[in-house]
Amino acid sequence: MHPLPGTAASPILTSAHKIGIVGLGLIGGSLARRLVGRGRFVVGWNHTTAPYAAAQRAGIHTVDSLEELAQGKPDVLVLATPLKAMPEMLERLAPVLPKASTLTDVGSVKGPVREQVAAVGLSDRYVGGHPMTGNEHSGFAASDPNLFDSALWALCVDESTDYGRFLTVADMVIQGLGDQLICLDDGTHDRSAALISHMPHVVSTALAALLAGHPDRQVAAALAAGSWRDMTRVALTDPERTRAMVEEDRPNVAALLRELASRLDGVAAEMESGADLGPFFDSAQPFRDYRACQMEAKRTPDHELEEELILDGHGWREQLLDSARRGRRIVRFDSVHRAIEVSGPNW
Amino acid sequence: MHPLPGTAASPILTSAHKIGIVGLGLIGGSLARRLVGRGRFVVGWNHTTAPYAAAQRAGIHTVDSLEELAQGKPDVLVLATPLKAMPEMLERLAPVLPKASTLTDVGSVKGPVREQVAAVGLSDRYVGGHPMTGNEHSGFAASDPNLFDSALWALCVDESTDYGRFLTVADMVIQGLGDQLICLDDGTHDRSAALISHMPHVVSTALAALLAGHPDRQVAAALAAGSWRDMTRVALTDPERTRAMVEEDRPNVAALLRELASRLDGVAAEMESGADLGPFFDSAQPFRDYRACQMEAKRTPDHELEEELILDGHGWREQLLDSARRGRRIVRFDSVHRAIEVSGPNW
Repeated sequence: MHPLPGTAASPILTSAHKIGIVGLGLIGGSLARRLVGRGRFVVGWNHTTAPYAAAQRAGIHTVDSLEELAQGKPDVLVLATPLKAMPEMLERLAPVLPKASTLTDVGSVKGPVREQVAAVGLSDRYVGGHPMTGNEHSGFAASDPNLFDSALWALCVDESTDYGRFLTVADMVIQGLGDQLICLDDGTHDRSAALISHMPHVVSTALAALLAGHPDRQVAAALAAGSWRDMTRVALTDPERTRAMVEEDRPNVAALLRELASRLDGVAAEMESGADLGPFFDSAQPFRDYRACQMEAKRTPDHELEEELILDGHGWREQLLDSARRGRRIVRFDSVHRAIEVSGPNW
Repeated sequence: MHPLPGTAASPILTSAHKIGIVGLGLIGGSLARRLVGRGRFVVGWNHTTAPYAAAQRAGIHTVDSLEELAQGKPDVLVLATPLKAMPEMLERLAPVLPKASTLTDVGSVKGPVREQVAAVGLSDRYVGGHPMTGNEHSGFAASDPNLFDSALWALCVDESTDYGRFLTVADMVIQGLGDQLICLDDGTHDRSAALISHMPHVVSTALAALLAGHPDRQVAAALAAGSWRDMTRVALTDPERTRAMVEEDRPNVAALLRELASRLDGVAAEMESGADLGPFFDSAQPFRDYRACQMEAKRTPDHELEEELILDGHGWREQLLDSARRGRRIVRFDSVHRAIEVSGPNW
């Protein structure tokens, strides 16, 4: 086995002692509160001081400027601002972020953020991050450490990612937050996130708009129950936030919307011609089976079989990417070389 | 004011003493348990006796045949079978259902059920019913009286509907279940239900199928969080049940799917051309405002202003239909002539 580059000998599991958070909104605030609750030292900066009093009561240290945050030498600096604010934040960070600090973010698209990071020359310090959690609310007042209960993080890497920095962010995720992670390349992340989040946000919004413009809206809205409420919940998200997320992932989202529209037109045609709808309903069966496995696994979490993945100094990136492709999640690192993974349901 | 036809003098609020339920599945079972819990006498029949022991433990009387159920002279007989079983049930009920029994159902489409009722000559005894509740599970084992907490019922009438029978079913809904109701014609119901339930079930299924067939499904499914879970929950419903519901409302559902597909293609085109997505996200704003009003009203239910609606012997149908069109719900009848209604949010 080759020695792993860029890593301290051991232990690697407490490398993210001090965490700086840029933006104390729903996600940044929840992240900060969770980390504080689990014993990490957290310093936050927000573009207005409005949440500072509440943040300080929650044990979060605050500073007056982004520059001060960076100069305080956090082990990890997390960008938790809206996507559209990131380029400005990165430009201000580039001249002041210490070499030893690792930069990550919680943005819902990863390719565009990496480009912005590269544009200001911070690629060597960057590991992309995306916690799969959130809700339709926003602001520190809506923050909740439990938002990170059993959340899965996608950590995104490319050929320039430093393994030691990857482990430092992994420490924040696993030990700092009690979460799990998978390792992805930006392209796979952005296509997958488009499929299970960005495109559905657009569909939800289109459903809400369809009702809003419908002559029967008054009666229909009165009749709306669980199915409608669930399908339109994310349409209640701040539209500027959703729009930014969708705009940064345009090509993937547009292609999926075309594909879904074509499927809906297809079912409509089958209905109009009186064709058998059986094949359409059958086509979702693998998903029903997948979810049934997943719910069964949740009922019996103790039966999750842990397996070890011995990581190689040169091959760690490909090994971890392959682990994710096979539906596995990293639950911890027992050492620099030894990741412990569990399987999800397969299909 | 004209005297109201077909009604006892008073009180009208306890006219549904004995309730017969055909089909003890998720909805029939939950309905029966809720009615028993609130003091009504409930007799059930199911096509297999599998749920009988559990039903009896829940205080539900059971009989060996549909005919016996009818001959027991229930004040209200509720058809709670799958839609596809209704024609056979109705054929068997027609020769044995006593004149004094009022027939209703819980089917998710109302026009086709009324046609089936007419085909067996039971129109004079029928009031259509659809409780806006349910979930993705099925069977008596999944039944839960709380499924009817704050449920809204659509009671569907036409020019032949007897007012006394309408009040009897209203008694079951309001006093028997603690629920509220609105009065609709079948066409408005079926269009509205297509909009907020039947079409969204198809969209949810199409989303699930899109994921199931996608090359990135393993990673995407691992990343799936709240937004995806909510949008695909109803795709987990027994596909035969969803299919029957959708098939009975084909023209409405197909037209809405075409409309949604066209909107999704439109947004995709805007994304591809780099157009401003602002107007698309703005188009859902009336729905966000409506839901904000609705949630505010839920936080302060005591502030709901009750208004009385004095019903006229000849005009009751049009008066109640108009009440629903204005977004109002009937919370009780203080007498045969006096309905008490509350407003929902307007848009």
